[in-house]
Formats: sequence, structure tokens, C-alpha cells
Amino acid sequence: MIKITFPDGAVREYQPGTTALDIAKTISEGLAKKVLAAKVNGQVWDAVRPIYSDSTLQLLTWNEAEGKSTFWHSSAHLLAEAVEAQFPGVKFWVGPPVENGFYYDMDLGDRKISEDDLAAIEKKMTALAKEGNSYIRKEISKAEAVKYFEEKGDEYKLDLLGNLEDGSITFYTQGAFTDLCRGPHIPQTGLIKAIKLTNIAGAYWKGDENNKQLTRIYGITFPNQKELDEYLQMLEEAKKRDHRKLGKELGIFAFDDDIGPGLPLWLPNGALVIEQLEKLAKETEEAAGYKRVVTPHIAKESLYLTSGHLPYYQDSMYPPMELDGTKYYLKSMNCPHHHKIFAAEPKSYKDLPYRLAEYGTCYRYEQSGELFGLMRVRCLHMNDAHIYCTKEQFYEEFKAVNEMYLKYFKIFGIEKYVMRLSLHEPSKLGKKYVDEPLLWKETEELVRDVLVRTNTPFVEVQDEAAFYGPKIDVQIWSTIGREFTLATNQVDFAQGRRFKLEFTNKDNAPEIPLIIHRAPLGTHERFIGFLLEHYAGKFPVWLSPLQVKILPISDKFLEYAQNVLESLKKADIRAEIDDRPEKIGRKIRDTELAKVPFMLVVGEKEVNENKVAVRRHGKGDLGSKPVAEIIEEIAVEIRDKRAQ
Amino acid sequence: MIKITFPDGAVREYQPGTTALDIAKTISEGLAKKVLAAKVNGQVWDAVRPIYSDSTLQLLTWNEAEGKSTFWHSSAHLLAEAVEAQFPGVKFWVGPPVENGFYYDMDLGDRKISEDDLAAIEKKMTALAKEGNSYIRKEISKAEAVKYFEEKGDEYKLDLLGNLEDGSITFYTQGAFTDLCRGPHIPQTGLIKAIKLTNIAGAYWKGDENNKQLTRIYGITFPNQKELDEYLQMLEEAKKRDHRKLGKELGIFAFDDDIGPGLPLWLPNGALVIEQLEKLAKETEEAAGYKRVVTPHIAKESLYLTSGHLPYYQDSMYPPMELDGTKYYLKSMNCPHHHKIFAAEPKSYKDLPYRLAEYGTCYRYEQSGELFGLMRVRCLHMNDAHIYCTKEQFYEEFKAVNEMYLKYFKIFGIEKYVMRLSLHEPSKLGKKYVDEPLLWKETEELVRDVLVRTNTPFVEVQDEAAFYGPKIDVQIWSTIGREFTLATNQVDFAQGRRFKLEFTNKDNAPEIPLIIHRAPLGTHERFIGFLLEHYAGKFPVWLSPLQVKILPISDKFLEYAQNVLESLKKADIRAEIDDRPEKIGRKIRDTELAKVPFMLVVGEKEVNENKVAVRRHGKGDLGSKPVAEIIEEIAVEIRDKRAQ
Repeated sequence: MIKITFPDGAVREYQPGTTALDIAKTISEGLAKKVLAAKVNGQVWDAVRPIYSDSTLQLLTWNEAEGKSTFWHSSAHLLAEAVEAQFPGVKFWVGPPVENGFYYDMDLGDRKISEDDLAAIEKKMTALAKEGNSYIRKEISKAEAVKYFEEKGDEYKLDLLGNLEDGSITFYTQGAFTDLCRGPHIPQTGLIKAIKLTNIAGAYWKGDENNKQLTRIYGITFPNQKELDEYLQMLEEAKKRDHRKLGKELGIFAFDDDIGPGLPLWLPNGALVIEQLEKLAKETEEAAGYKRVVTPHIAKESLYLTSGHLPYYQDSMYPPMELDGTKYYLKSMNCPHHHKIFAAEPKSYKDLPYRLAEYGTCYRYEQSGELFGLMRVRCLHMNDAHIYCTKEQFYEEFKAVNEMYLKYFKIFGIEKYVMRLSLHEPSKLGKKYVDEPLLWKETEELVRDVLVRTNTPFVEVQDEAAFYGPKIDVQIWSTIGREFTLATNQVDFAQGRRFKLEFTNKDNAPEIPLIIHRAPLGTHERFIGFLLEHYAGKFPVWLSPLQVKILPISDKFLEYAQNVLESLKKADIRAEIDDRPEKIGRKIRDTELAKVPFMLVVGEKEVNENKVAVRRHGKGDLGSKPVAEIIEEIAVEIRDKRAQ
Repeated sequence: MIKITFPDGAVREYQPGTTALDIAKTISEGLAKKVLAAKVNGQVWDAVRPIYSDSTLQLLTWNEAEGKSTFWHSSAHLLAEAVEAQFPGVKFWVGPPVENGFYYDMDLGDRKISEDDLAAIEKKMTALAKEGNSYIRKEISKAEAVKYFEEKGDEYKLDLLGNLEDGSITFYTQGAFTDLCRGPHIPQTGLIKAIKLTNIAGAYWKGDENNKQLTRIYGITFPNQKELDEYLQMLEEAKKRDHRKLGKELGIFAFDDDIGPGLPLWLPNGALVIEQLEKLAKETEEAAGYKRVVTPHIAKESLYLTSGHLPYYQDSMYPPMELDGTKYYLKSMNCPHHHKIFAAEPKSYKDLPYRLAEYGTCYRYEQSGELFGLMRVRCLHMNDAHIYCTKEQFYEEFKAVNEMYLKYFKIFGIEKYVMRLSLHEPSKLGKKYVDEPLLWKETEELVRDVLVRTNTPFVEVQDEAAFYGPKIDVQIWSTIGREFTLATNQVDFAQGRRFKLEFTNKDNAPEIPLIIHRAPLGTHERFIGFLLEHYAGKFPVWLSPLQVKILPISDKFLEYAQNVLESLKKADIRAEIDDRPEKIGRKIRDTELAKVPFMLVVGEKEVNENKVAVRRHGKGDLGSKPVAEIIEEIAVEIRDKRAQ
């Protein structure tokens, strides 16, 4: 018998050669139907692969990221099977799972594939899925594998085989299709219940534009039709909420060929949103004891040699400017400048924690093909800060940062989020990671402890920490369920030493501070892009560039409208009058389209009663109210930063 | 008889060959004693040079800039005469007047001159001045002039002569000293009543470091001892108020070798001052109908080719970064980016005036030898804005900008200022100036009209306008009487065309807007440098990084101090507690040194009476006050931005 240890620590005994799927069946038939793969001793395996020795076991279903990616990888094989059935002689390159679904790159020879063909392939995939064919794993010698693909005439798979070693090669077969594949796969095709092929694109072989262009088919699959429907609906909604479209309609940002790709110009409405975000950050940080600083956007090469950005991060930096025999770089991060401010005046333990904040603008080089609206840019206004503290202060400081994240999530109505805690790998100390085993252990435990104690949802990932300490990547989901990477939150026990930062401790000895890098609001670019989708452009009142539009029914009421405007301005409410000679219906429609939260209509009746007729965006007429009353209501809504 | 026209338009007749000095004597002996030179037909002449034809005449005294510079140039000759008396065989290069005084560059051979020698030279100068020797002008042929300096053995003057044409060469002689000089000079040395040699420095011949190093002696002179004493006192005071010294003591800014020369790091206290200035600017601009924008710090070469910065301004820009085959430049001005924002969305006359404001950070290349604290830097945070308007709107817009300047001067207690209105020269239209004779005439008149009607002190300067329109340079004086150039305010009718900016006018036709470039607060760098000197580091309360320090007499009163702190913070007052275990006297001294405006001392009595003992920086004890009362007083002082 072999011992199987479950995630909850329970241990049970099974016959050698049992599989994860067998074990699931001993628990419940319902569970077994959901099992897509299994984590055996930390490695993702086929659920039907026999286990011969004592092992830890985690069953993977659609709820686990690795379950999903196995499902989508198997779907890529199903796509290949369907394509091969329709286009005999097609040659395949690779077919990996991606963030949402999968793709397969293929060489169709002289044949062209169109959007119309996708429907036929989808139909074929559905038919093949219904056959419920098993994914069968086979270990195979390199010679046999080469022979198979030579006979098939697929030079792409032969190219892949060239890089593989004998003894490590496996084939997977489902139905009539066999692929060179490391696996793992789901038990059988019948688990794939809903299929959508989403796109065709060209893709150079190995990403090199000198190579042949292959055809890439993208798709996504689900274990039931309902989830596919929801996904397609989310896509439809996301299209309407596209931040590039809304950004243009609402006058938030623009790009210009003479400025350069990835360098947004923030138009007046965008600058107003920025202003509100910065105000929020400044108030929050001031209350939390941060000090603000202002630093230049450039520095000498020597700064980045000290920080290690050069040469390791050079590809992500703008090229240097040569001046007076010195190279200057645009900053891609604010930390080195902040370290220099920490070092500018001597520090003692009484000065710690020393928290430096700046909405610093960084410049990073992204391939022009990677640029995307505000989501991938080259100019980043970063909600940055660095906290210099002692080891004893670390727990409280990190907890406070975490609470600041949660506070912001609440303000912005971000209900779903996950913190991805990236840890080091002890065997790589001194290579991939700073050789400070104790500090790693201590800080990782402290960080984990903060997350656990504050009930923050998080996942742990081994071997993905930063060089200088454990790191948290924050993932958030917009109202319509799309995932965004917002920011990172990092512990750093290496830069302090590199920059020779120190403070005099209580024993009057020099000591190197720990550093926390944090940016809860990420960058203006990505966060405002996210908010545009999240709110569908309908910003809550406090964030709205224009908060109130006053609509006089005719010119006769302009003077009264002016008085209302003055009162609104006195209450620091951003308001305008629509003084165009248009019918009131037209004015209301245009203001609705501009997504202004409040419309105050004024006519004969309102003037006589010293009132305004209140309309709320998306909600219509709210009846008449005295001017002072509605101003107070709006002011309170702004002050409380109410969501809607 | 010849006709002499005076500045007030009066015309009088004189004998041909009369001199400005003769004419002054006919007006009053007192005036004649003050005449240093004269402007004859727009050119500065010796006051004793005969006039033979009808001319316009302006007498120049110590009150006129040209009077001062003639006085100092003549003083340089006096210095040379004194040096030659003490160091026979000395050779002279050039001796021009400068902003404050004059210098002379000389070759003393193997001899070294020390600070001690200066006193002896000063004494000799005073003696020579008392002789009252006339400065005698002599036109001389090139051959004679060469012969003179060959005999004297002065190769430097011979080098100068090499570049001069026969017929244009003049010598000036006073006492035993003769110099090659274009002039003009004051009538006689006796006018120089007070002399101070201020510095000795090395200076490469012709500014080229491959040439021999000459000795440069700096000096300043005055027509009476009182003015010299005042000047020296001002220098003394300026030394105490040196913004570099105060900036370090108060934690305002720092430089770092790894960041680069001319690139200040703004420390927390500096960032707080910046924050207050930006808040003031934002509030003022918002009330004046400006829209804020945010633009990147870089742009493609093509933007600056359109603006004309390339190639004409290239030497003042950082060198380019080559990326994806395109050159990118750090912006040295914000205007091209703002023009692109104007152009990003179509405009009609209803959108004008369109006022775009940004505290934009620009980068300019200054020779490292020119850099000086915050006064000459390479990174400039500019209080920038561009107003796009119609010709009809120009007057009101320009007037509003001018009033904004005056409003700021009042807030900062700047009592002395002058606007220097630079005009075009009609004969250079199409060459040095855009060929728009009517627009020049119109806008110059409108600008002048604004200055006259608002009683703004100004001077007019011909032929110093910008290429694209008339320009105002604003000069301000600090409390101790030092002059600073703050900012420029420019009219621009060329960039609109270059950038193809247009709006649809009332006739539904495209029209190019006029543009006003303005920056009333200049740059943070220069303005904060000025304010440090102006206030001697004692910022008014609203600008003070720290506004209140609470000083508990002992630990027993810490809790009460905390309560006071909370109340201050609620009123948005920047406050801290001095919780060090120090005696109260020490705490008061340290807080005085840190120039914190208010100290609130708390002890037994204060706790019992719910009061604080108030001390004001520089004013000492103001007695006890209830906490709420002093908070209200401070809050009002902040709100009103009171000077002290």
C-alpha cells in the first residue's frame, strides 16, 4: 500500500498504481466528474496517471488555475484534431493555454482560413468532444518520435524534438490525433462542454519576423454552456466599456504621433480625474505619516549601476542621453531617487519608519507592438512610496500598507481581489535570491501573517519573489469580472546595502534599514484605464470631471442658473451651465451622453420656488429640491466618496 | 545753430560743437555734476563729446542703467591705471562693466596678486580718482594704434586691434593710462567717490581653457560712500540669506553626484513648500477659468522640428535618445505639448479663450560652470500656462494675466518690480521677427495699454522681442534689494500657424488663435530660491513646512500635547510635538533655529487652564491663550496667506 497525503493533512492508504481519478471516486462520484488534473508531490499530473509511491495529492478542478490551464491545453489538442480532420496535411507548431483560453499555431500550406471556417471547426470540435475520447499518455523514444513526425511530414514538431532528450519524450493521443506533448491533460474530451473560437491571427514561427508566418487560432472552452454565455456577455460588455473608446468620448486622454507611442496626453477631464486620485493619495498618505518628495526624471548612469537596473533592466529603459561625457537615463523607477533622499541627511532610529511618497513619473520601454491604450504605456505616473524601517517595525508597517490597499478597494468598489504572494526558493539563495536565509524566512512569515490575520484573500507562489525580497502582486477584478494586475508591494533587504543606507540604532551603531516598496493605486495610466471599464465611464460624483450641469429651459433663466452655479462653486462642486440655445430635451440627452452625474434643470417654476429640478444620470427625474438642499446632498456624496 | 530735442519733446537751439555736459550746465549746475554720459540720437556718447547736428538728447545719470554701466566701465580703466602704477609691464585684455560693477582681465607675467594687494590697489585708485583726470577720447589710425601697443609690448591689445577696421578706432586716456576703447566714458575720474575691489579670479584668455590663464580683478564703485556702504551691507545680508545655505539648514533641497548637476532633489520640507505654491497656483488658475492638463516629459524630434526648437534651441536641450529609429527629446518647454492638446479635439470660437495650465517639468542644458544652487538648474518645474484666444479677446486675457502677476506680488510681499516690455524692430520684420507688421503694432499697443492702465511699472526695450511676438520679462527685488528675473510673459502669433492650430470662427471659417505664454510664479527652483532669500528662511505661516511645534515642558504633559496636536491637525495645520527629553529652553532654541513660526509650550498651568503658552518666531512670548483661540488665529493667518 502507498500513503497519500491530502492538503488538509489527512493521510490515506491506496494500492500502488492507483490514480488521482480513482481516489476522487472513492471520495464521491460528483467530485470525480469535476477532476481535471492533480498536483502530485507539487507537480501537475494527468488525473489518470498511476501513482506508485507515497505522495502528496491535490485534486485540481475548474476552480484551480492549474485545472483551468490543463483544460484549455487539452482544448488546444481538440482544436488541432478538428483542424486536421478538416484540413488534412496541416502541420502544427505549439498550442499552449493562455490567460483566457488557448491557441494553436499551424501551417496550413497554401490554404487560407477565414472567420467562416471557425464555425465549422467549432462544430467539429463539439462533435469530437462528445465522443469522450481519453487523452492517452505514452512515453516514447526519441527515435520513434522522430520517425512518427518524419512520416507525418511535420518539420515543426521535428524542430521541437531536436531540443528534447531521449527518455523525457511523451506523446498524447485523443481520438485520431497524436501530439508531441509534455502534458498533463484532462481525462477525456467529454469534459469540454462549451467551445468558442474567438480569433484568427498571423504569428511568425518562433516570433521571428524573418520566419514563415503561421496561422494562429484562438479559442476558449468551458465545462458548461452557462459559463461560456457569461464569458461572451462579459466580452460584449467589455467592448462597450473599452477604456480607449470611453477615454476619447469623455475627453480623458489622447495620443499624438509627434509625441510618441505609449505617451498619453492627459486632456483636461483626465487631468481632473488624476487630480482627485492624487488628492486622495496625498490625504491618505499624510494621515499615515508619509512625507512627500519631488525628484528629477533623470539621473546619471552611476545611479543605475548602483541600483543594479543597469545592466539587468536596461532593455526596459529608454536609451541614454550623452552629456558632458556622462550618460543620463530617464528613470524607470523612483526607488533609487528616494534612496538618495533618505541618504541626504543623517538618520537615527528616531527618524524611522521614514516614509517617502511621490507620484513619480517613470519611463519604461515597451515594444510598440505591446502598447495598448492606457494599459501598456511607456510613461507611468506611479503612486509610489518607500518605507525605510527597522526589522521590529516591519510587521506594523507592512500591515498598514495592506490596510491602505483594502481601504482603496472599498472606496473604488473593488469587491474581488487576490494578493499573489511570491516567495523565494531556498535552493536558489545566493543565485536568484539575496543570500539572507533568515531574513527571507522572517519577512515571508511576517507578510503571510499580515495577510492571514487581515483575512486578505491570497495565494502563494514558490520561486517567484523579487531578487531582493518577497513580493505581492495585486490582482483586481472590474465590475464585469475582468482581471487586472494593479500593483506590486515588495519587501527589500538588498537595496539598502547597495546604496549604503544606514541609520544609527539604539546602540549607537550603524544599521541598514529594511525597505518596503508600495504603490496601492498602481499607475494613473492603468488605474484610470481600469476605472473607465469598471464604472463604464460613469465615475462616482467625487471622481467625475464635471459633477453638475445646470440646464436652463430658456435664456430667461440664465441669471438664476448663474446664481445656482456660484453657489455650487462655493461648495467646491465642479459645475457648468449649458447655455446653448437648444431645447431642454436635447440638453438632457447630451448631458446624459457626457455621463455627468447630476443635471439641475431650471425654469419658471424653479425660479419662483428657489428650487431646481434634479435629474440623476441613469436614474432620471428625482423631483424638485431647494438649491441649498441639493448642494448639501451632492457635497456630502463627494465628501464621503460614495460609489454611486 | 543746431536743434536739440529732449525726451519730453521740448526743442532748444545750441551752438554746433556744444556737448551734453554744456547743455546740462545751461539747465542747472547740480544736474551737470550728476551727468555721466548722454544718449545722442539713441547712441550712448561721452557727455563731453561735441555735437554738430540736430539731435535727440537724453542725459544719463546714475539713475539710468546706461549711466551706471558707463560709470563702471570708466572705473575699470581707473583700476587698470592703478594696477599699471603698482605692477609696471602688466598687459591688459578687456575690462567691461557687469551686472554689479566691473572687472579687468590682465596678464601680470610671473607676478601673483593676492587679496592683500587689492587694498593697496583700491588706495591707489582712490588717489587717482581724487586727481579728477578727464577721460580724453582720441580717434586714431590703425597703424598708429598698432605702433603704440607694439612699443608697449601688449600682445592682447594687438590681438583686439587685428579685428578692428581703420577709421573706427579710438583711444581713451585718463591720467597716465591710455587704453584701446570704443567708449563712452564719464567726464572725469573725480566722479568716482567710493571704490571696492571685491574679488580676484583666474580667467582663460578668450574663455578657452587651452589659452593662458589671466588674472581677473572684480570691483564695484559708486558716486558716494553711502551707496557703497549700503551695497556692502546688502551683500553681507545676502550671504546670511544665501538660499544654498538656508536650503540645507531647513531641509529644502539637496544635490547628489549620482543624480547629476543642476538636478535638485526636493526634500520633504521643500516638497511641502512646492505643494503650497502649486495649491495657490491651482486655486488661482481654476478661479480664472484655466483647465489643467498633464503631459509627458519627452516627445519625438518631429514635435520640436515643428515648433522650431530644433535646430535653433538645440544647444539648450538635452541630447536625444534614439529609440526604434526615432529621436526622442526631453522637453525644454511645455508649449508644444499644450498645442497638441489644443489640437486633440476640434475647437470653435465658443471654446475660446482656452486656457491650459500645467506645473510642467522641463529640462534645459546649462553649462556646468553656469549652474548655481536653485538659481541656475537643469530641471525646471514651471508654473506654465498657454491661453489660446481671438484677437478680440486678447486685451482682456492679457490684462487678467497681468493682474495675476500683481496679485502674486502682493501675496509674497514683493514691493519692487519692473516689467521689461521687449518690442520688435520694424526694419527686421521677416528676418528677426515674424512678418506680421499689423499684428506687432496691435499687440504691442495692447500690451503697453494694459501696463499703463494698471499702473504697472515698466520699461520699453526696442529690438528685444521674441521671434513670434512682444515679450515681457519680469524683474523683482527681494527684501534686501537684490534683483531677480522671475518669468516671461509672451504674446505669440507664430506657433499657432506652425502647429496648424485653428478654431471655427463665428463665420464658420477656420482661424488661427493668438497664444499667450505665461508663468507668473516662474519655476519652483528659482522662485523658492528667491523666497529663501526674501524671507531669510522665515516663511510666512501658510508656506512654512512646519507651522507649529508643541513643546511639552516634561513627559507628564505629552498626553495633553497629543490632544493639542490632534486639534491642530483637524484644522489642517502642520504641527509636531518635540518629545525629546530635553529642557524647555533647549527645545525653544532648537525650534527658533528651525524657523518654525509658532511654538506652543505646555506645562502644568496650561494643562489646568486648557491653554497653551504661545511663542512666535522672532517675537518671543505672546502669553497664554486657550487652545481653540490660538488655532483659530493660526488658521485665519494661513487662510489669508498673511505675510508675517
